[in-house]
Amino acid sequence: DLRDQLINLFEQQSHAQHQKLWNNARITITAGPTREAIDPVRYISNHSSGKMGYALAAAAARTGAQVTLISGPVSLEPPAGVTLIAVETAEQMLAATEETAMDVFIGCAAVSDYRPAEVASQKIKKEQQQGAPSLSLIKNPDVLKTIATSKQPPFCIGFAAETNNLREHALAKLDAKKLKLIVANDVSDKTIGFNSEQNAVTVYWQDGKKAFSAQNKTSLAEALNQLFAEHFFNENK
Amino acid sequence: DLRDQLINLFEQQSHAQHQKLWNNARITITAGPTREAIDPVRYISNHSSGKMGYALAAAAARTGAQVTLISGPVSLEPPAGVTLIAVETAEQMLAATEETAMDVFIGCAAVSDYRPAEVASQKIKKEQQQGAPSLSLIKNPDVLKTIATSKQPPFCIGFAAETNNLREHALAKLDAKKLKLIVANDVSDKTIGFNSEQNAVTVYWQDGKKAFSAQNKTSLAEALNQLFAEHFFNENK
Repeated sequence: DLRDQLINLFEQQSHAQHQKLWNNARITITAGPTREAIDPVRYISNHSSGKMGYALAAAAARTGAQVTLISGPVSLEPPAGVTLIAVETAEQMLAATEETAMDVFIGCAAVSDYRPAEVASQKIKKEQQQGAPSLSLIKNPDVLKTIATSKQPPFCIGFAAETNNLREHALAKLDAKKLKLIVANDVSDKTIGFNSEQNAVTVYWQDGKKAFSAQNKTSLAEALNQLFAEHFFNENK
Repeated sequence: DLRDQLINLFEQQSHAQHQKLWNNARITITAGPTREAIDPVRYISNHSSGKMGYALAAAAARTGAQVTLISGPVSLEPPAGVTLIAVETAEQMLAATEETAMDVFIGCAAVSDYRPAEVASQKIKKEQQQGAPSLSLIKNPDVLKTIATSKQPPFCIGFAAETNNLREHALAKLDAKKLKLIVANDVSDKTIGFNSEQNAVTVYWQDGKKAFSAQNKTSLAEALNQLFAEHFFNENK
């Protein structure tokens, strides 16, 4: 009947609009933590469930993007229609990212800033240790900055998880890493971020910002996905 | 008919035998890794999916034990009929264990031997760091040894994940921690242990040992559960 026909028509149009949003743009998203080995059983890592990055990948894939998701170790199923590359360390994440052709890069992973200077090939026995041991660290490559400051950088979007001075730290990162957009969230608030289902963020760019109130990560990802596409096509029209 | 009656009878007997195995003994099992904070976003941890400890808890609960499962952060559902206590750090795991009354203690968790000497209350900004930073560590309490060397220790069973000299390290642990049994596995073999579904172990005690070939963790847990009960009741008859 007419009602069904109208619903069908509406769904088709809605689907077509969704498809059009990214118009087959190639988007690479990093997600989850990295793990940096101390020895074969111990490692350094960061709190990150990967939920935000996976939700963004799903939203982008649903709206006509070709999505590559480069993910550290998480307990999530890869979203439909997304190419998943699984990595462990920051160096592996950078290598995988550099090998991927992209128009947009979204650095959502919680990359370890440091890794142990030396990795023991065998488990370090505590009985062998004298007194208080110390772990020498070295800086990891900055995946997002490396991509954003490359010769022909894609449109780069970063995330800033901060516990204090959110706005100041986010704007400093936007500038230092030559990003187009940065999504800042206050991880000292236990009700949002990290392993939570909910998140509230503020997105900053060179001459503006937009706040998103606390909501589930799927709905937030859809809103961010819209904003990212607007800014990307505004710059590339 | 007769066939159904026989099947029913068999199932009832099987159920009753299962119930009898542990005869309501109180078993506490630790499982999973611990996480030791460096700052609000970074931590040190160990590879451990928690699968072995959770499978042991399920097997013991199915066979008439009262099971308390004290678990570090993992992505597993708690088994039916088990009391779950969720913890993050080694110190929390010890405190929870010491508060639990038990006849048998199975230390299956991959407890961090060390934790950072100081925990920063705010995220450490890498821009603030000069050169190669170093992380001072201090020893964590040894949960298993603390319980096994307490005044009236329960029947204590440990796990040894080793990358080399398996037998030697396992027997040294059995002795140093005053354990009744130790389950040793070679984690340098990538096909078993850690995040794998399969595991192969050798159980050592003061004057004997028993090897279990590679099999899935559920079936291995059932076999270990039998062996543990035999040794426990042999000592407590």
